Amino acid sequence: MNYPSKLIAAAVAEFKKLPGIGEKTALRLILHILKQEEDKVGFFSDTIKKMRSEIKTCTKCNNYSDNSVCEICANANRDQAVVCVVENIRDVIAIENTGTYRGLYHVLGGIISPVNGIGPDELNIQSLVDRIPIDEVKEVIMAISPTMEGDTTIYYISKVLQEYDLKLTTIARGVSFGGELEYTDELTLARSLASRMPYENYIVK
Amino acid sequence: MNYPSKLIAAAVAEFKKLPGIGEKTALRLILHILKQEEDKVGFFSDTIKKMRSEIKTCTKCNNYSDNSVCEICANANRDQAVVCVVENIRDVIAIENTGTYRGLYHVLGGIISPVNGIGPDELNIQSLVDRIPIDEVKEVIMAISPTMEGDTTIYYISKVLQEYDLKLTTIARGVSFGGELEYTDELTLARSLASRMPYENYIVK
Repeated sequence: MNYPSKLIAAAVAEFKKLPGIGEKTALRLILHILKQEEDKVGFFSDTIKKMRSEIKTCTKCNNYSDNSVCEICANANRDQAVVCVVENIRDVIAIENTGTYRGLYHVLGGIISPVNGIGPDELNIQSLVDRIPIDEVKEVIMAISPTMEGDTTIYYISKVLQEYDLKLTTIARGVSFGGELEYTDELTLARSLASRMPYENYIVK
Repeated sequence: MNYPSKLIAAAVAEFKKLPGIGEKTALRLILHILKQEEDKVGFFSDTIKKMRSEIKTCTKCNNYSDNSVCEICANANRDQAVVCVVENIRDVIAIENTGTYRGLYHVLGGIISPVNGIGPDELNIQSLVDRIPIDEVKEVIMAISPTMEGDTTIYYISKVLQEYDLKLTTIARGVSFGGELEYTDELTLARSLASRMPYENYIVK
């Protein structure tokens, strides 16, 4: 598209680089920004720039962090002996929002995917292994999506951790709450039957 | 949502202010930005900031412009005696992209809408009237959406311009190219029958 202003054309080109934002959406956002007051737009762009330049990676769990050790790892009230292994920060946020988990995390930065050229060495797996004796980890929970690649990653981690004396768990798979049996896929239903649990455990106290 | 980083939380809050961007989309964009190199993100935010601080309004047509007079108005190859009245810069871009219009524009900045408290005084109508004798305008084309509010605006402009000796036109309404008769609404079909044109005009030379 041709724009009557080079300033607008340049800004649209920048917004178009963001995922899921096409030319028309970019223009809509730019025209919205043009209607805002100048200091508000300045604050918007400074916030983005500052975030990118000041963000760090937690030296312990590899999560994005404001400091060299993230808020979660630095929190003395959390159980330092339990580590939940996740794919990325989105999963950390999802689990944090349940408000029930009190252990720490370890962010892999992806999952093993030979098709995309991602092997174990591209992920933060060695740093997980190194943490086990140092932090005296007693349980590793693998909260990784149950896809083929996710299961491969879980299997690989279980192998490299087998020499350590710790409890290795995965999050429960089964029919989701609110999910209807008749619309649940066969594999999930079969696995949830095989992994059936005592009724006493079903009631959350 | 809780974020493990205040920098990320602040950036998500800023992105959420944009129209059509919710919390999950904002987070997705932010995580994409975090993966980009620092200088690229700096360029992104500087481009947005610069656009907002340096953008001007064309003193002639009220369009957004890099200079005090926009590229279109300053172009000596364009027909200065023909002015196309549009609602906003999006319409200017749409018409420019047809590549066939060689006149100038006049951007109203909205349309008359009593429900939203927008009357003629809130729009750039007086500056349009002032242009007519100064620029020796011979034709005013009203390219405004055929809604109730659009038609009110067209009617109002036709009234304030009737004292001038000029050709007043509106863009053609009718069945769109590629449109099927059976799915065209009754009003459009009735109007396109009433405004039927000689077959010779149908063939674009």
